[in-house]
Amino acid sequence: MAADPRAKAATLNLRRRLLSSSCRLFFPEDPVKIIRSKGQYLYDEQGREFLDCINNVAHVGHCHPIVVQAAHEQNLVLNTNSRYLHDNIVDYAQRLSETLPKELSVFYFLNSGSEANDLALRLARQYTGHQDVLVLDHAYHGHLSSLIDISPYKFRDLDGQKEWVHVAPLPDTYRGLYREDHPNPAEAYANEVKNVINIAQEKGRKIAAFFAESLPSVAGQIIPPAGYFSQVAEHIRRAGGLFVADEIQVGFGRVGKHFWAFQLEGESFVPDIVTMGKSIGNGHPVACVATTQAVSRAFEATGVEYFNTFGGNPVSCAVGLAVLDVLETEQLQAHATNVGNFLMEHLSQQKAKHPIIGDVRGTGLFIGVDLIKDETLRTPATEEAEYLVSRLKENYILLSTDGPGRNVLKFKPPLCFSLDNAQHVVAKLDDILTDMEEKVRSCKTLRIQPNSAKHPSGKWDLMFVLHLHQEIHDKMFSRFRG
Amino acid sequence: MAADPRAKAATLNLRRRLLSSSCRLFFPEDPVKIIRSKGQYLYDEQGREFLDCINNVAHVGHCHPIVVQAAHEQNLVLNTNSRYLHDNIVDYAQRLSETLPKELSVFYFLNSGSEANDLALRLARQYTGHQDVLVLDHAYHGHLSSLIDISPYKFRDLDGQKEWVHVAPLPDTYRGLYREDHPNPAEAYANEVKNVINIAQEKGRKIAAFFAESLPSVAGQIIPPAGYFSQVAEHIRRAGGLFVADEIQVGFGRVGKHFWAFQLEGESFVPDIVTMGKSIGNGHPVACVATTQAVSRAFEATGVEYFNTFGGNPVSCAVGLAVLDVLETEQLQAHATNVGNFLMEHLSQQKAKHPIIGDVRGTGLFIGVDLIKDETLRTPATEEAEYLVSRLKENYILLSTDGPGRNVLKFKPPLCFSLDNAQHVVAKLDDILTDMEEKVRSCKTLRIQPNSAKHPSGKWDLMFVLHLHQEIHDKMFSRFRG
Repeated sequence: MAADPRAKAATLNLRRRLLSSSCRLFFPEDPVKIIRSKGQYLYDEQGREFLDCINNVAHVGHCHPIVVQAAHEQNLVLNTNSRYLHDNIVDYAQRLSETLPKELSVFYFLNSGSEANDLALRLARQYTGHQDVLVLDHAYHGHLSSLIDISPYKFRDLDGQKEWVHVAPLPDTYRGLYREDHPNPAEAYANEVKNVINIAQEKGRKIAAFFAESLPSVAGQIIPPAGYFSQVAEHIRRAGGLFVADEIQVGFGRVGKHFWAFQLEGESFVPDIVTMGKSIGNGHPVACVATTQAVSRAFEATGVEYFNTFGGNPVSCAVGLAVLDVLETEQLQAHATNVGNFLMEHLSQQKAKHPIIGDVRGTGLFIGVDLIKDETLRTPATEEAEYLVSRLKENYILLSTDGPGRNVLKFKPPLCFSLDNAQHVVAKLDDILTDMEEKVRSCKTLRIQPNSAKHPSGKWDLMFVLHLHQEIHDKMFSRFRG
Repeated sequence: MAADPRAKAATLNLRRRLLSSSCRLFFPEDPVKIIRSKGQYLYDEQGREFLDCINNVAHVGHCHPIVVQAAHEQNLVLNTNSRYLHDNIVDYAQRLSETLPKELSVFYFLNSGSEANDLALRLARQYTGHQDVLVLDHAYHGHLSSLIDISPYKFRDLDGQKEWVHVAPLPDTYRGLYREDHPNPAEAYANEVKNVINIAQEKGRKIAAFFAESLPSVAGQIIPPAGYFSQVAEHIRRAGGLFVADEIQVGFGRVGKHFWAFQLEGESFVPDIVTMGKSIGNGHPVACVATTQAVSRAFEATGVEYFNTFGGNPVSCAVGLAVLDVLETEQLQAHATNVGNFLMEHLSQQKAKHPIIGDVRGTGLFIGVDLIKDETLRTPATEEAEYLVSRLKENYILLSTDGPGRNVLKFKPPLCFSLDNAQHVVAKLDDILTDMEEKVRSCKTLRIQPNSAKHPSGKWDLMFVLHLHQEIHDKMFSRFRG
């Protein structure tokens, strides 16, 4: 279908006419048209190269030749449903089982993380006979009706919280209820879950499952305190519920030290259900639910068939197998540790230099940089983060924000992201933050009054900085004055 | 990942160990291992060729080279999410819009028909402000929680009907409430919908949407009487609800005369939402929701983003475009009419010859053959249908059954299905039915008592026929006696 390349404006016009504006573009005021990609790089219609720091779907790198070839070879011979026997689906299940605790030995294949979480919900309800779900605040588990219901990130803006959904505080030790100065934040946050269970049970509700991303990402790249999930699992299981680890964004070697993010909790910690998506197909629509024999058997006992038209087809499984091969042969999990450590270290140096950086947290190539307006209240530096992201984009670096305050820069690049890439991003970040501080100084000198941060054109201008809290202003100035 | 071909038994053992038995195989007593396919043919590990009469996903033929090449070419250059501008997604939306009434001008892209129906549900609820859904009896709309709730085919076996779901009788003029002898079955069945709406409204319920397959397929390859859907749409809209046409199994040229099955209802009939899946990607996980500007705007007005990680990615859209190209260049819609008419004609001749065939209905390459035990009650010939399907499989013809009585042979082959294929299937069907009648005669002669239809080995044996109703027996005999 390669016609002559269409001008970006023409593509945008067609998109505005034919697609819903609910489907949003990055940088809506000046969107990017991408026509080619390779590894950690995206190329626009002018051939300009962008460094991709955020695409956790292109897990082993955009257009990885091994993965592309595997899809093609299988597409040439067979792509049909899983009602016929085929080796790819069983090989893929077996390879996945080798990455998981032995208890998680039954696999369901689907097309998206959302489909996986929806099935996890069905499995948990069937097994427990309960209906309710406990989730973490600000969580996002998918775009389906059932998942919007269990995603505070979404339902807060829509029709609100259903009576069968219960929300526990986010175990965020930087800006949550219990922070780095608390003697035992893991226990304190787990007790919050226990409280939520108790309140629900007093109302006669019964918990089917606790759902959580093993590292809450949409909630702001959160690293829960060690021991938290184990204690939560105890509370949940005591209430008759299952523990569902949503690894859709964070699993598959990204955290470096382990293959799955839930394994950060220790070897003895085993969720009842693990959901996978995004990364496992490197862009091909593949997803998976892994669970125990007991949970699977309860579902089978209904006698109702589970059929997913495309789920587990030979092409999807060939792609999944190829992604696993590449992860292994290119040792990308170890690479994620190396590059992640390097990036964390250099970002931490930036934190020491730039007061707007309140926190740098992460593991492997899952890193968050929490931007603040002030050190005391840790007020999210929302506008500053947006400005920074747009300046990075002008520098051909694609980064974005997450968290309820949209102030946490999130790094979750393809795992082939290199030390040079990390160094380059940090240098640009340093340049832009230094320039921002310079502008603060100019404004102050010119005695410009605080003003709307956004220019009527929609572009950020110099005024942005006047949103900064006095405390950070003063620190920035001290450097220039000094 | 091409290791040495594994023996079928070994694949089956691995499957039993690693996959849930809820994910069922065709012919569970003797499943088929398929390793290669082409057009309308599937090949097992021994190289045996099976004729595929049922795969409506491999719409333009298994492994169509144009579609496979389009996927590969796009996979080589870019596969990323729809937050960047790309021509494929707008080209695909534009091409789809050319096939639809002009009112259906906004497109959402997703990965599966289930995701599409779930989004349709959300759109309808948002637009109408209502929550309830009206569906046809025996309908199936997908495997997600929200869709099992609106699928009588599923919820009857599970936890039953939710209070927000209302079921109208299937407009089946062969075995439903109003039959071929009714003066106006369309109106009569539409009035049933009106009644269901009235009853719901008396309870204070408000209808958000009527969901129906434009040709109910899981319910038994049903052809609703002309005029039915238009009248239903009037009733639904008067109740403030939307009309959702589920074209996942039946759209995209299959019905021959029209591109979409809902168009059988006439040019002036326009659903509010059309959902597409299965066929549109020829096996690649692609799906789509088309709707009106008004419905889309109501969804946008919530301010909540709709993001689907893989939905509308450049590869999925390249595949979708290629499928449209092949449909056009190979004139498969006209081909579906020709082969469908031929098949209908020859199956009707079989009906005249074999009393077990109660009804032959269809349009294009969507055909149902309703098998009965007796002409008066039209009792579904469930066991006979299962036996027939297993005999066809022994003859390397893959056919299956649908309908609540699992007695309707369903033809929904890849559209490249040929006149020769049609002739071949009909000839085999004739042979097997003749042989079945022969066996009935032998049993009768031998004065064998009616018995369990199934052999303890799980295989069907001669005894099956003794399930046949006396009336059909007698007709069969008259032929042999005569």
